[in-house]
Amino acid sequence: MAKNMIIGQSGGPTAVINASLAGALEYAFGCDEIDTVYGMVHGIQGLLEDNVINLTEHFAHKPSRLNRLSLTPAMFLGSCRFKLSQKEDEYEQIIKELKKYDISYFFYIGGNDSMDTVEKLSQYVAQNNIDIKVVGIPKTIDNDLMGIDHSPGFASAAKYVALAVRNVAYDTAIYNIKSVHIIEAMGRDAGWLAAASVLARDSENESPHLIYLPEVPFSIEKFISDIQRKLKEYNSVIVVVSEGIRDENGEYISARSDNVDKFGHKRLSGVGAYLQGVVEEKIGCKVRSLELSVLQRSAGHTASLTDITEAQNLGMIAVKAALNGESGVFSTLRRTSNSPYSVEYYTERVGVVANAEKTVPRHWINADGNDVTKEMLEYLKPLVRGVAQIPYRDGLPDYVNISHLDNRNQRYTEDEKI
Amino acid sequence: MAKNMIIGQSGGPTAVINASLAGALEYAFGCDEIDTVYGMVHGIQGLLEDNVINLTEHFAHKPSRLNRLSLTPAMFLGSCRFKLSQKEDEYEQIIKELKKYDISYFFYIGGNDSMDTVEKLSQYVAQNNIDIKVVGIPKTIDNDLMGIDHSPGFASAAKYVALAVRNVAYDTAIYNIKSVHIIEAMGRDAGWLAAASVLARDSENESPHLIYLPEVPFSIEKFISDIQRKLKEYNSVIVVVSEGIRDENGEYISARSDNVDKFGHKRLSGVGAYLQGVVEEKIGCKVRSLELSVLQRSAGHTASLTDITEAQNLGMIAVKAALNGESGVFSTLRRTSNSPYSVEYYTERVGVVANAEKTVPRHWINADGNDVTKEMLEYLKPLVRGVAQIPYRDGLPDYVNISHLDNRNQRYTEDEKI
Repeated sequence: MAKNMIIGQSGGPTAVINASLAGALEYAFGCDEIDTVYGMVHGIQGLLEDNVINLTEHFAHKPSRLNRLSLTPAMFLGSCRFKLSQKEDEYEQIIKELKKYDISYFFYIGGNDSMDTVEKLSQYVAQNNIDIKVVGIPKTIDNDLMGIDHSPGFASAAKYVALAVRNVAYDTAIYNIKSVHIIEAMGRDAGWLAAASVLARDSENESPHLIYLPEVPFSIEKFISDIQRKLKEYNSVIVVVSEGIRDENGEYISARSDNVDKFGHKRLSGVGAYLQGVVEEKIGCKVRSLELSVLQRSAGHTASLTDITEAQNLGMIAVKAALNGESGVFSTLRRTSNSPYSVEYYTERVGVVANAEKTVPRHWINADGNDVTKEMLEYLKPLVRGVAQIPYRDGLPDYVNISHLDNRNQRYTEDEKI
Repeated sequence: MAKNMIIGQSGGPTAVINASLAGALEYAFGCDEIDTVYGMVHGIQGLLEDNVINLTEHFAHKPSRLNRLSLTPAMFLGSCRFKLSQKEDEYEQIIKELKKYDISYFFYIGGNDSMDTVEKLSQYVAQNNIDIKVVGIPKTIDNDLMGIDHSPGFASAAKYVALAVRNVAYDTAIYNIKSVHIIEAMGRDAGWLAAASVLARDSENESPHLIYLPEVPFSIEKFISDIQRKLKEYNSVIVVVSEGIRDENGEYISARSDNVDKFGHKRLSGVGAYLQGVVEEKIGCKVRSLELSVLQRSAGHTASLTDITEAQNLGMIAVKAALNGESGVFSTLRRTSNSPYSVEYYTERVGVVANAEKTVPRHWINADGNDVTKEMLEYLKPLVRGVAQIPYRDGLPDYVNISHLDNRNQRYTEDEKI
């Protein structure tokens, strides 16, 4: 009987999830134990709907296409937000699908929800003596995964944030007037991405001047007085805030009752826009807010080469582990040295990462709660190093086509209804 | 008597204004007719305040620093928003400053307001038989300058818009749900930058699906029905709008009475955020808006190599023209061939560009007013080609330091007041 593998992607996109896919594919194509490699389109949800493609046909013996996949942001296989229930028949349906494709190895690239899927499925197959190895491959821009030094995808988003802050600092420095720019970074309840803006500083460039993370309760009054102090020192003050900052009661600043859109709807994003209004009211100088939004997680053209390489290696390590009989684990890395930077790869029980969250340690944030410490800078610095050689066509990155994600057959039938 | 030159920058920043400065400096350093090169800090306003630095000391015999200047976004010399009045004493003050530094050649890099300054000053020196040549060097991301095929700075901003739209298209394609993303581009009353998003398309990628420019009256009803139609065909619909779109009465959509912030203040930017609210209300699917804001004009790390080279050449041509005795002109370029792309450089009376505005020709926009034509695509394509080799340090672009723009002496005296 053929021994096939299937791989899927889940959760939010990053610039290097496809690099992990490419790494897994490269390893699988190179070993005799695996016959055909399949992909779940839209993750476990797609598998339940038998939405499966043949990745061997797509990428085997196509090294340059596989390289382009490594440099293509977001998810070639598409994503889903699907949490496995405890319902027996859901597992039976999954196993039925996996048997249909003679799957012996199951891989899932994702964050802590996806690792929960890996955990549950690996337990189910073990309990039912089904010979399928189930292995996770980590990713998230938020860097909030336990059991890993830093999450693949984080470094490229961190680099984007630092690039944006440095460019905005140059843009805003040109006028001889007082101004405040508030840049909002993602990261949910972890401040890692906002913290990464510190990389924009160098010996001469002091931006960002203030950094606020969710790990420290946020006070509007303190925020205003911090800015007033910085405005005495600088013409152009650059402030970075994490989307997840909360007040002393744990309420999201973005969820303030007076943070409403034109229809009076509460906004759950846009803390930067909200704080812009506050600064305009309390200080009255020129204020602008920028929400980096999905640009920070999708910028394949400025991905960190360190990030891409590590994501590829974590894909390879996962396949290697499954072939060695491991299951219910995920591929991970630990930092063995910071300068020179080096990591070592290994596997870890997936239970370590599932449904847990790693936030910024308090001692990596300054006492005042408006900046990060030298330890944070040292942790971040090596991650953004290296510039990937992106293949360009007509001046734009030549990514691998993902039009298969938008179901054209269905689309055209819908067309006829028009 | 020494024959010195002075150069200044004015108006809004672009990724390549410093490339024009570098081009002018390189040419000036290489010819015997010019002794010392000075820079006005904060343009003509800085000159009136005797805020002048010695650029020969900064850059002569420093080729690698001059190259880094070419790749540094925004303005090394800082900017101002200063329109010359008709007051005689203002001109006398300027001439007094220029005589103080033995200036024979005056250069001003900017948009149409800056070219108005060049026009007025060149007329004043001519009428008063003062032997100073006054020459303009064009720039603007808006591409709305007359008398030039395309404005330096536009191509790099256009490339940023196309990169952002392509990345967002990949990011949003991963979920199997209906969604709308509205991306707001700059450009004031000209649609060139929003139009440049068409470059994100290729044989397989059809994003952006809708493009709205200020040159065609904008109808909310039409906009909603356009999106509803596209949602039948695509899961993820990407819409690009120009910040300057207006309704049939010429009123800015962003200035709608119901486009207010939390304090009830009318917002004059944020048409994307406004339209997000409209789509949420009328269609109700997942909607997100992204304002590219200053990121699109400050992204030095993704500048178009074509743009950088042309900006450098226009700086050189301007100095060459002044040395040939020309005054009251600006350096410009015309496209002599589109494929292979080639341009020729020349000078033109500055009156041609001052206070005028070039918008998108109606026949480069489709009949429906929600897309651009093949002519526009052909015009844009060559401009974004070429990737500059940016020097990186620790994974971030190694720009030339501009901390001299923030007056530290003044800053520290203000400090003492704390």
